[in-house]
Amino acid sequence: MAAVTAVTRWRLLLVLSAAALGAAGAPQPPNILLLLMDDMGWGDLGVYGEPSRETPNLDRMAAEGMLFPNFYTANPLCSPSRAALLTGRLPIRNGFYTTSGHARNAYTPQEIVGGIPDSERLLPELLKEAGYVSKIVGKWHLGHRPQFHPLKHGFDEWFGSPNCHFGPYDNRARPNIPVYRDWEMVGRYYEEFPINLKTGEANLTQIYLQEALDFIRRQQAARRPFFLYWAVDATHAPVYASKPFLGTSQRGRYGDAVREIDDSVGKILHSLQDLGIAESTFVFFTSDNGAALISAPKQGGSNGPFLCGKQTTFEGGMREPAVAWWPGRIPAGQVSHQLGSIMDLFTTSLSLAGLEPPRDRAIDGLSLLPAMLQGQLMDRPIFYYRGNTLMAVTLGQYKAHFWTWTNSWEEFRQGIDFCPGQNVSGVTTHTQEEHTRLPLIFHLGRDPGERFPLSFASTEYLDALRRITPVVRQHQEALIPGQPQLNVCNQAVMNWAPPGCEKLGKCLTPPESVPEKCSWPH
Amino acid sequence: MAAVTAVTRWRLLLVLSAAALGAAGAPQPPNILLLLMDDMGWGDLGVYGEPSRETPNLDRMAAEGMLFPNFYTANPLCSPSRAALLTGRLPIRNGFYTTSGHARNAYTPQEIVGGIPDSERLLPELLKEAGYVSKIVGKWHLGHRPQFHPLKHGFDEWFGSPNCHFGPYDNRARPNIPVYRDWEMVGRYYEEFPINLKTGEANLTQIYLQEALDFIRRQQAARRPFFLYWAVDATHAPVYASKPFLGTSQRGRYGDAVREIDDSVGKILHSLQDLGIAESTFVFFTSDNGAALISAPKQGGSNGPFLCGKQTTFEGGMREPAVAWWPGRIPAGQVSHQLGSIMDLFTTSLSLAGLEPPRDRAIDGLSLLPAMLQGQLMDRPIFYYRGNTLMAVTLGQYKAHFWTWTNSWEEFRQGIDFCPGQNVSGVTTHTQEEHTRLPLIFHLGRDPGERFPLSFASTEYLDALRRITPVVRQHQEALIPGQPQLNVCNQAVMNWAPPGCEKLGKCLTPPESVPEKCSWPH
Repeated sequence: MAAVTAVTRWRLLLVLSAAALGAAGAPQPPNILLLLMDDMGWGDLGVYGEPSRETPNLDRMAAEGMLFPNFYTANPLCSPSRAALLTGRLPIRNGFYTTSGHARNAYTPQEIVGGIPDSERLLPELLKEAGYVSKIVGKWHLGHRPQFHPLKHGFDEWFGSPNCHFGPYDNRARPNIPVYRDWEMVGRYYEEFPINLKTGEANLTQIYLQEALDFIRRQQAARRPFFLYWAVDATHAPVYASKPFLGTSQRGRYGDAVREIDDSVGKILHSLQDLGIAESTFVFFTSDNGAALISAPKQGGSNGPFLCGKQTTFEGGMREPAVAWWPGRIPAGQVSHQLGSIMDLFTTSLSLAGLEPPRDRAIDGLSLLPAMLQGQLMDRPIFYYRGNTLMAVTLGQYKAHFWTWTNSWEEFRQGIDFCPGQNVSGVTTHTQEEHTRLPLIFHLGRDPGERFPLSFASTEYLDALRRITPVVRQHQEALIPGQPQLNVCNQAVMNWAPPGCEKLGKCLTPPESVPEKCSWPH
Repeated sequence: MAAVTAVTRWRLLLVLSAAALGAAGAPQPPNILLLLMDDMGWGDLGVYGEPSRETPNLDRMAAEGMLFPNFYTANPLCSPSRAALLTGRLPIRNGFYTTSGHARNAYTPQEIVGGIPDSERLLPELLKEAGYVSKIVGKWHLGHRPQFHPLKHGFDEWFGSPNCHFGPYDNRARPNIPVYRDWEMVGRYYEEFPINLKTGEANLTQIYLQEALDFIRRQQAARRPFFLYWAVDATHAPVYASKPFLGTSQRGRYGDAVREIDDSVGKILHSLQDLGIAESTFVFFTSDNGAALISAPKQGGSNGPFLCGKQTTFEGGMREPAVAWWPGRIPAGQVSHQLGSIMDLFTTSLSLAGLEPPRDRAIDGLSLLPAMLQGQLMDRPIFYYRGNTLMAVTLGQYKAHFWTWTNSWEEFRQGIDFCPGQNVSGVTTHTQEEHTRLPLIFHLGRDPGERFPLSFASTEYLDALRRITPVVRQHQEALIPGQPQLNVCNQAVMNWAPPGCEKLGKCLTPPESVPEKCSWPH
């Protein structure tokens, strides 16, 4: 009863004075629940046009909330986009990039030496100031060495793993990836946490679901505002689902994984409703990068009508499904054409908590509250980076490519194809093509698939370029790149002996330390 | 009041005994309203994932009705697919094909000599037996010579034109296309019915809307069951919209046309509700073929995640947006995975009227009522023809291509591209490739974009082929092709002096009659 009253009071106050939020003596700010998918594509949800339409819960979430068809990640790869979400900053600023090759994607495999720098201020760390309790469920991916541990960066609880669930390994040349509960490992993938690569069976989404439901229940009971970051990975190859879902999708194993996640999201939203906290919980669903078409069709999703996928800065690599849900606050059944970014979730969450983003650094995220609560549209650019290279920018309906590249001819000839079935001459190039002086410009409204570059001689091209040029210049002139974290690899830093391994008798002996330049082929 | 009572009685009767429908003394069967789009693609509606989401009325229609994501036309070109809709028969049966080249698409330009044969029994002709009054608004496209006139084939009223709205012509080498009201022409495109090619302005959708609203009102007042075939063409190049819609879409002129049609559909559905006949009117929305990607991005739509477009037998050419709406009868917010065909609208409509399809000929359409009213799924093949050539078949989730072809290298080198930005090696071929012995097979659930043919050696391939082969053999063995109507062209048969031209002083003198083989380049 007291909680309900507090919520009502808080809502009233929000209407009267948004500035009062989080101030001393103010009522409880809303809970924040970010549902971050792994390699799920824009086209994977029924509401985004997936023909099999197997996501009734996510479609209902959209019908009850707000859809953002123009929502972008900050990088077409997992680690940098996750670092961007939690810092509100482009990877080029927070260090999640490499300088070891031009326009190269980099991430955090277990031989990576770097991770999230202590100088970065992460969302859960900041939310503490407003009394939030924070949990990460699932994939961290911001570095796996002790100093990068999520509980050292503001999270209070963790259930999940630091790296991708690749494997199985032999624990000699390469250890299996550990699964942590809070500070310590509780097992490893393919050992205590089995993934059957042949059948695709794994119980992990169910475990992640229970972790979420349990955390939500505990915080609701304790009347504490919470931040839950639900970063599940069933749709990342090797794709998995639990037995009740295997073989149930028209889309094969990938679809089974999507169906299990959809079912879990439905259960999470229902639990918020059952606990009476739906109207005091802001929920946002999105993905870390576009569908990995290299794994399609059996282990990869769909980017709908967009060009290429993960690893590329075409729309298929960077545009993400996005749904905001906050019953009673965000009007139901709306579509926002706001250009949104995964980094906006940082600023929006702070704003919900009544906090300001740090002022001592550049923040790339905007608060989406004006878009969500008042239907406002804010003019802002979306920058598309690959490593330390600004590949493209979108402003309004216009996207300008300064560099085009998919992957090298050498890789492509080996069958590594980020754009299967797609080929736009002069655009999906296999050499790094520079267009900085005369960018290729597309109108994304008429041509969301980036197939028809505007004519360089057209008035439309010149007008678009005239608008884009100063925005890019301003961005580049003010940019202070962070210390690159993804340059150095070392077999010795792998997950040989994570904290807690002694209790389990699962410590492995690392090889000799040999730091080397990481190899980032694309 | 009487009408409401009749409707209620009829609904009761339908529940008690579907067989009683249309029998002597039976109450009034439902009105039938088919909304047929021109070159609109699967991906053009918000509910099918169009990123700009500018079709609120069609999306609402889907939310209140049933979506068919697996719905197909009978041919990737306008005339044959329209002939198939109205006869319930494949073009190879009803004569809407050519034998003048292998796998060639043919249609009814104004120099065509053929048209719908008298031996074909059209839907409005059959519906007369159940007391329906029928009107066609918009494009007929089943032949423009006097014997092919829609009012000779069962329609009671017509407002529209016999051919595409191409032009303007000089009325010397080639006449402008006439616009008819019922038996006689009332003007010509680019003359009495202007289309501004430069601005895209034309008032035609508004006229077609008023024709529909007027017809509906009149039939409702007269308490007569009606069949309205609303065949608008604003989304066919040259794409047009009226002034209030021009420039309003994020998608350019094509989007303006879609927005105007969406608005019109909303007005039509509202009018049914206002007149109290929504629950006694079956409405179905679909399109004649995939989006014409040759006209993209300025004058062509979107086929979403599907391969290629109009003119091809890939999914982009043949899979159509489809929504059924019948408040109180078809449950709201449903998705049917039934493989549906435009020809099913023939059989479904007859079934709604309590009529049986003709028994003296092969009918390819099924009644979709079991799918729509009871959620049943019926196993049935979808055949993909180009001219007289069976290019492909879909059975369940498997699609087998017996021939692959887009267009010739010669055309392609001239810039005519049915698959811009798409290129699936060995699939989107520019020579006619035969695969009749070893078809290319795709799993459309995992791979709706037809990018990953199954391995010939896989068990899955062999199982699929084993299911498909007898179905195709049975189809081909039983097939009796109709007399081809689209082989012969003649400048003398063009719209020089349509009926009514005398009154308007708009008769033109035809040239000498020189019948010749039509040229069908692809």
